[in-house]
Amino acid sequence: MNAPIPASHLAPEIKPRHIPAEFIDELKTRFGDQCSTALAVREQHGRDESAFVSIPPPSVVVFAKNTLDISDAVRIAERFSVPIIPFGVGSSLEGHLLAVQGGMSLDVSQMNKILSINAEDLTVTVQPGTTRMQLNNELKSTGLFFPIDPGADASIGGMCATRASGTNAVRYGTMRENVLALEVVNAKGEIIKTGTRAKKSSAGYDLTRLFVGSEGTLGVISEITLKIYPLPEAISAAICSFPSIESAVLTTIQIIQMGIPIARVELIDKNTVRMVNAHTKLTLSEQPLLLMEFHGSPDGVKEQAQSVQEIAHEHGGEDFEWASTPEERTRLWSARHNAYFAAIQSRPGCRAISTDTCVPISRLADCLLKSVEETEASSIPFFLVGHVGDGNFHFGYLIDPNNPSERETAEQLNDKLVARALSMGGTCSGEHGIGLHKMGFLIDEAGEAAVDMMRTIKVALDPKNIMNPGKIFSFTTK
Amino acid sequence: MNAPIPASHLAPEIKPRHIPAEFIDELKTRFGDQCSTALAVREQHGRDESAFVSIPPPSVVVFAKNTLDISDAVRIAERFSVPIIPFGVGSSLEGHLLAVQGGMSLDVSQMNKILSINAEDLTVTVQPGTTRMQLNNELKSTGLFFPIDPGADASIGGMCATRASGTNAVRYGTMRENVLALEVVNAKGEIIKTGTRAKKSSAGYDLTRLFVGSEGTLGVISEITLKIYPLPEAISAAICSFPSIESAVLTTIQIIQMGIPIARVELIDKNTVRMVNAHTKLTLSEQPLLLMEFHGSPDGVKEQAQSVQEIAHEHGGEDFEWASTPEERTRLWSARHNAYFAAIQSRPGCRAISTDTCVPISRLADCLLKSVEETEASSIPFFLVGHVGDGNFHFGYLIDPNNPSERETAEQLNDKLVARALSMGGTCSGEHGIGLHKMGFLIDEAGEAAVDMMRTIKVALDPKNIMNPGKIFSFTTK
Repeated sequence: MNAPIPASHLAPEIKPRHIPAEFIDELKTRFGDQCSTALAVREQHGRDESAFVSIPPPSVVVFAKNTLDISDAVRIAERFSVPIIPFGVGSSLEGHLLAVQGGMSLDVSQMNKILSINAEDLTVTVQPGTTRMQLNNELKSTGLFFPIDPGADASIGGMCATRASGTNAVRYGTMRENVLALEVVNAKGEIIKTGTRAKKSSAGYDLTRLFVGSEGTLGVISEITLKIYPLPEAISAAICSFPSIESAVLTTIQIIQMGIPIARVELIDKNTVRMVNAHTKLTLSEQPLLLMEFHGSPDGVKEQAQSVQEIAHEHGGEDFEWASTPEERTRLWSARHNAYFAAIQSRPGCRAISTDTCVPISRLADCLLKSVEETEASSIPFFLVGHVGDGNFHFGYLIDPNNPSERETAEQLNDKLVARALSMGGTCSGEHGIGLHKMGFLIDEAGEAAVDMMRTIKVALDPKNIMNPGKIFSFTTK
Repeated sequence: MNAPIPASHLAPEIKPRHIPAEFIDELKTRFGDQCSTALAVREQHGRDESAFVSIPPPSVVVFAKNTLDISDAVRIAERFSVPIIPFGVGSSLEGHLLAVQGGMSLDVSQMNKILSINAEDLTVTVQPGTTRMQLNNELKSTGLFFPIDPGADASIGGMCATRASGTNAVRYGTMRENVLALEVVNAKGEIIKTGTRAKKSSAGYDLTRLFVGSEGTLGVISEITLKIYPLPEAISAAICSFPSIESAVLTTIQIIQMGIPIARVELIDKNTVRMVNAHTKLTLSEQPLLLMEFHGSPDGVKEQAQSVQEIAHEHGGEDFEWASTPEERTRLWSARHNAYFAAIQSRPGCRAISTDTCVPISRLADCLLKSVEETEASSIPFFLVGHVGDGNFHFGYLIDPNNPSERETAEQLNDKLVARALSMGGTCSGEHGIGLHKMGFLIDEAGEAAVDMMRTIKVALDPKNIMNPGKIFSFTTK
């Protein structure tokens, strides 16, 4: 870096800063009932779905009801140099919500209005606390939908912050491709629009995409304009069982390489099938399977499905089982989305350490199979699901949080997996983000100079280091 | 801004800085024949396709052959605080290449190797001087193609820098969606990779998209990894003539709103048809027309074309004329791509001032028709072409560069058009960039606080203001 790193950025990543009583008083005066210091409220805001060791909760939680609330909360925190941790529904998997330097949790879950649906332009503008399922419920009557679906019913604001994706990304892209514009509150409390509703633009730096994936470290997202899509004329979903993970993966690679516009293609390994069956009372055959969905015109869907069935047969896949009614499809995809929770319940008291590598599709089999072998050789129970059409997959190592040796084994497995993915031109995180625990992987992946460029941007836009400090990169260790 | 703006950024936008003789000497020692101070070479590098008043050319041109050349040239320029203007093929339309503060033109046109084609992953890695047509020629044997096609045979590096798009963007997206990763040389001369070949990633700030559209102001792009696509099984192109621009536009709006995955849908007004006929010996009917292309399976293409023909008929469109052989299609699309040059030749000695607004599709008719009316009421000859499926269109005002009153009229027409587009939720630039002359429009569009955020990033990443200074935003006037 050119400029020296300011002292504000040089606090150890995990060390609460001093929170002045005057700060809390001022928040209470401004926010009244929208401000809480109750321990239960603070504790609920000091954790997420990750498996990280617990950290003391934030000192205070502010419930924002509108953009002005966010702006005022940021201005007060800025004056006292207090960290701000934006909070949606708490479904992060990478420790994004942990108050590692103490401070204020800024809960936007009550900002959950759909502000405008522009059906004719295929855009919608929402507040950040809107969840993806809520949005799709409200869109239902318009014949439109929003495809991005991380497992949890996450908030749209959180999905922007982590650059989330999910099962439909293979066809519809991720939050990177589907956020048209944001309103954000910067570290000074100013309200900024990062784009317009035009479908494309060459007007200046792409601030929208700078904020998408910034994990709350550059500002607070207060409004989001998204692309939405006409519900396909025809949709059909199919399950195909395979003799091995390899045959399922090779089928996937060929589907993608042939350019078949499949909407979803998800791998579920046999462990996970067992867990999902137990959790959801389904009776899926306990073999590796691909869960697929085809979108298009009735003829187009038939054409796609036929091509995919032929490819699957070539690799030893069985005949498709079809789910054509909306109810059957919903049941199937709910099972997929609940795989994480089904897995957690399969080992009472466990926490899941979830991996998130993503590799170029041609390297998927190499990367995945070697890691399956290593994981099976360990004693750690695991599940494996994958957005394999994108080259992205998740091992979930189901560890006993009180057994340090299990955690260590899981970390070693993940280290090997990430190193393998990076050596194949892949990334350490396809969709969960860096958060607290992948900072070293980010340096391995991007290099010190690229991470320094990120740090330089952070220092410039947040000179007091109040926006979710201690996430993505460290300033104290390189 | 929090931090004061450094003196380096406060030079008037258009005022050559002092270029020390030692700087030129050092470049000559390092680069020998790859370095030129010949007037003809400098003049060729001091202009682009824009209609801006001429500015003295750069003091020196360096021809880079590899990334190390770029890095060394930047390091030398950085030591002497000399501006660096990256140069591809010179096809910019917004004055990006003009040496408004003097300095060095860094020509990357000799860096035009295709470094690797990963057909199985649908990615390609190229040097920045590779042109889009060269890339597609080299991809031909693989059955793959790169869809982004600004009118000129632009360099891929320049297309990244301006976030270019073109006729295929309606289906395939713009450079924003199609650049997977970059190698860039930052303002210190360090070489940085901004991403991997993975299809998606949540690993840290999206540096790739920060550089895409940064117009050379943050660093020099030295390598690009792009998405490529399987050539569609079937392609057919059709021309449809309409009684009015309005009926052509209403047809387009309906095509998009119905979600028909049309690959190209271009509006050409009757003026432009006349100019193109004269320039290319075509005999298109002198009416407003839509030039369309359909990609997909043979059945899919038929289905799309049939739906579109029905919509067109409803709006008074005539029967499609088909171009199904590759030769006919090439002839047609060459005519479209040469519309700009055909227009220029229609008025010898003229320069074109090209507008570039883009609006949400539902507002396209309102925005466009009102502006056609205003332009027809002026005395300025014009052409009108549009990537109407994206809501983006270009008026070209064909002005006599020696007649200040024509320039003024054209600027007034553009001012009105931009104000109208912004009031409709659109952008002042869909694909050409801000460059020298749209800085005021950018502030109108994004607001002072958003532009300040861009300035803050620029100051942080380029503290000596050497990377293409004086473009996108001003530091001296707000």
